Amino acid sequence: MPRRSREDTAETRRQIVETAVGVASVDGLEGLTIGRLADDVGMSKSGLLNHFGNKEALQLAALRAAQQRFRVEVWHRAADEAPGLPRLRAVAEAWVSYLERRVFPGGCFFAAATMEMDDQPGPVRDELAESMSRWLDTLATDAREAQRVGDLPPEPTAEQLAFELQGLIFATNWALQLLHDDGAPARARAAIDRLIPPAV
Amino acid sequence: MPRRSREDTAETRRQIVETAVGVASVDGLEGLTIGRLADDVGMSKSGLLNHFGNKEALQLAALRAAQQRFRVEVWHRAADEAPGLPRLRAVAEAWVSYLERRVFPGGCFFAAATMEMDDQPGPVRDELAESMSRWLDTLATDAREAQRVGDLPPEPTAEQLAFELQGLIFATNWALQLLHDDGAPARARAAIDRLIPPAV
Repeated sequence: MPRRSREDTAETRRQIVETAVGVASVDGLEGLTIGRLADDVGMSKSGLLNHFGNKEALQLAALRAAQQRFRVEVWHRAADEAPGLPRLRAVAEAWVSYLERRVFPGGCFFAAATMEMDDQPGPVRDELAESMSRWLDTLATDAREAQRVGDLPPEPTAEQLAFELQGLIFATNWALQLLHDDGAPARARAAIDRLIPPAV
Repeated sequence: MPRRSREDTAETRRQIVETAVGVASVDGLEGLTIGRLADDVGMSKSGLLNHFGNKEALQLAALRAAQQRFRVEVWHRAADEAPGLPRLRAVAEAWVSYLERRVFPGGCFFAAATMEMDDQPGPVRDELAESMSRWLDTLATDAREAQRVGDLPPEPTAEQLAFELQGLIFATNWALQLLHDDGAPARARAAIDRLIPPAV
């Protein structure tokens, strides 16, 4: 394949995935049918099938693109902070603000995907479970470092803190998306300040 | 209509709704198509349409039946406790145990429904938002009473406590359903004991 076509192919693929992430964030990963997406990107079904052989491949590509966007919009905003409490607090703030900024049009991509896919065994569910577990570990690692240097007390455990942070994010996403309650991010921040208070 | 047939009709309707709740808890409210449910209950589509005119009527009936089951499995277990901290703590315990007992085969019916319906305007979404808001108010009312009699400090506010309890339930449901992490209920209980500690 000549270089130009390779680039075109990559660009088309990128546009398809971009559209797929938007569709999935509003209508769910099950909404990602080949027919629906072909319409949305203005392509024939067979053209789309040249890029993604089936719905599952499309779902996996959308999930990975969503992970990448999450890394940029949450992790990269905090990654330069010192490991431990400073980075944990920066991550928590970036995570709340990711909901506030409506990075995905339908709210948190992963919260929606988990409710949809948790009963659907297969590679999409596996990838989702693995990436969310890794994220919880990332949080717990900084919490553990904060405890090691005395910036946080040894209890609640690092795993407990990560779990509770995840819960605050779910509640914030729910309050924003279902109840249109714009006060939710402030409540999340108040809870975070009690859970992992700034070092004195 | 003779009395016997009226009873038969009510019983058939009850069985359809029962099946619908199970289907929706695993495959979501969008999974509740007339065709799918007719198959599941062993009925013709036109027979089913005699009971529920369309998919939305079926979704609403399933949602209301799920609310009723939630009232029995959570609220009724705590309703006899004294208003304030005793009842709030009993509700929180019944709520965690509702997840642990897997009252719905697909995990929390409302957590799944909210992620699915929050971007779908209409009566199902409205009913869901209203019933979840009412539930949050129920929690906040007991929290406020607990604060009034000095069983809980005035801060965090009652609304904040209700919000955080909701978050813990979402996180527990997520950990059980997606990660198959059976340690989640214990983490929820530890967090609840810090958030709304028993009166001394």
